[in-house]
Amino acid sequence: MSDHESTSSIAAFPPPGPKPALEEGTELTPRFDRDGLVTCVTTEAGTGEVLMVAHMNARSLALTLETGEAWYWSRSRGELWRKGATSGKIQHVVEMRVDCDQDAVWIKVRVGGDGGACHTGRRSCFYRVVSGAGPDARLLMADEAGPG
Amino acid sequence: MSDHESTSSIAAFPPPGPKPALEEGTELTPRFDRDGLVTCVTTEAGTGEVLMVAHMNARSLALTLETGEAWYWSRSRGELWRKGATSGKIQHVVEMRVDCDQDAVWIKVRVGGDGGACHTGRRSCFYRVVSGAGPDARLLMADEAGPG
Repeated sequence: MSDHESTSSIAAFPPPGPKPALEEGTELTPRFDRDGLVTCVTTEAGTGEVLMVAHMNARSLALTLETGEAWYWSRSRGELWRKGATSGKIQHVVEMRVDCDQDAVWIKVRVGGDGGACHTGRRSCFYRVVSGAGPDARLLMADEAGPG
Repeated sequence: MSDHESTSSIAAFPPPGPKPALEEGTELTPRFDRDGLVTCVTTEAGTGEVLMVAHMNARSLALTLETGEAWYWSRSRGELWRKGATSGKIQHVVEMRVDCDQDAVWIKVRVGGDGGACHTGRRSCFYRVVSGAGPDARLLMADEAGPG
């Protein structure tokens, strides 16, 4: 048995069933898109702040559940991505939820290291507020934008 | 000028620039995917609860900014979707943020009507907690799952 085969079993999820089972059932049957991904929203468990939006394939979703740490699929690098593996900013999963049609998950995490999630060094990837509309739309750093 | 042409101007966003402008700039230059969509995370402004994950095309993003109410693009119906238009559960946008690489937005909303966001009648689409891993993974209704 190859390394791949020896670990692939944990990536197997049952196929999505009909709508009643999908929406009201007790079985996790993710609806992966044509690229094999579901969307993941990650929030800080203590504050509720949205830290990032990323993607998970079956393998990273399974690894996240198995290990209790967030694993994503990096679309830009085309590889599994154990968040914080190099920086120490491991995301410890406090709770995972799935949405009604099972194409998105929400994880509440406690972040190791300095608590940051964004590659720019900021705590959250959502550090800019959109102000105005149309040609006048501008991005303001959240700290400058005042209370929302 | 057709109706389409008369309103399409507000859907125009400048094309994404190089990484420094994308990440640190003050211009909203959404990185729409191959289907012309960005991901939108919607949270309840008061509680921070994640209500839903949906998608916006240029038109719905522009309309959301123009009107202060959430407009999405329904992938299943292939049409613009003014959330709450029929149910009265209009989502009033308190703040919009954009993430580092501008392929996702986060809106904080106050919801009209009974405050619900999910088509199943629940407040949030994320009403089930994932418990366990591998073949033992099960979904529990959030109210039954205890504090996360």
